[in-house]
Amino acid sequence: MQRSPIKFCRECGQAVIYRLPDDGDTKPRAICTSCHTVHYENPLNVVGTVPVWGETGDQVLLCLRNIEPRKGKWTLPAGFMELAETTAEGALRETIEEAGAQIEMGELFTLMSVPRVGQVHLYYRARLLSPVFDPGFETVEARLFTEDQIPWDEIAFRTVRETLERYFEDRRQGRFGCHTFDIA
Amino acid sequence: MQRSPIKFCRECGQAVIYRLPDDGDTKPRAICTSCHTVHYENPLNVVGTVPVWGETGDQVLLCLRNIEPRKGKWTLPAGFMELAETTAEGALRETIEEAGAQIEMGELFTLMSVPRVGQVHLYYRARLLSPVFDPGFETVEARLFTEDQIPWDEIAFRTVRETLERYFEDRRQGRFGCHTFDIA
Repeated sequence: MQRSPIKFCRECGQAVIYRLPDDGDTKPRAICTSCHTVHYENPLNVVGTVPVWGETGDQVLLCLRNIEPRKGKWTLPAGFMELAETTAEGALRETIEEAGAQIEMGELFTLMSVPRVGQVHLYYRARLLSPVFDPGFETVEARLFTEDQIPWDEIAFRTVRETLERYFEDRRQGRFGCHTFDIA
Repeated sequence: MQRSPIKFCRECGQAVIYRLPDDGDTKPRAICTSCHTVHYENPLNVVGTVPVWGETGDQVLLCLRNIEPRKGKWTLPAGFMELAETTAEGALRETIEEAGAQIEMGELFTLMSVPRVGQVHLYYRARLLSPVFDPGFETVEARLFTEDQIPWDEIAFRTVRETLERYFEDRRQGRFGCHTFDIA
């Protein structure tokens, strides 16, 4: 886990300690030494799309990252899901923010747990409505790639590489599934 | 959204204010007035199972809730996903904790966004290995129900009702899908 431990209570500002709560819970939690609020820490969802172009969906949109982590590497448009949105709404929002792409959302394509970093990544298939992009500040460049053109050694995240591999595999089979698997 | 706003910084204990960060972010965040740490708030995942018994999977395991919310109502075993586990591991853990049931995990069955409360609910199909249960303190009773026996008006959550309805519908069709939809 790469998140830093909680040091102070968000309710009253006093120090917390990690201990087992008194309610039967079996995991140590950050508990306020003053107001006794229990602070839970939970996984984050990352939501994104596989935006494709061409009658047969042979080209995929990738974004060259302008921010850390993995600045200078290529990724599918994706980011942290926000409160008050659905997984699909978050995936659409990230695609607009990072690539300035116009898309029609499709089905859920991959759901991957990444327990090492406490994350779940969800990618939806999407159909590009235009090959013209207008990337935001997080992206240097948004560009279409065929399978042969994809810079496989320059992909930012394993979740993205695995999702791309399954996209082209399913495309060859002529049938798209919903793939759930874990990234160790 | 039903979570209370952040009042104090978890890093240094000083007061936060909600404002737009300086990094181009478009949403107000809780930002520390002293150390300037930005505190993000994100959706939580609830993970659970549809544990079934009988050669044709005609009986489903439900748990009578012994805790709020919806104490005294029936639910599928489920709870908040924890750090350092996968969605399927969390679903299995909750099934053991709440029902004391032995199961073989199956495929992802429903994925439901519930934006009103900032949650995503995921249910996996599961095959019970025994009809004997040993519920934990969160559960008054764990019991098998056929479709006709299910107390439809006493189901704790809409996500559970919708998942049960789709289970029996798919069972009639003889084919189980992966259902993604939203609960308004």
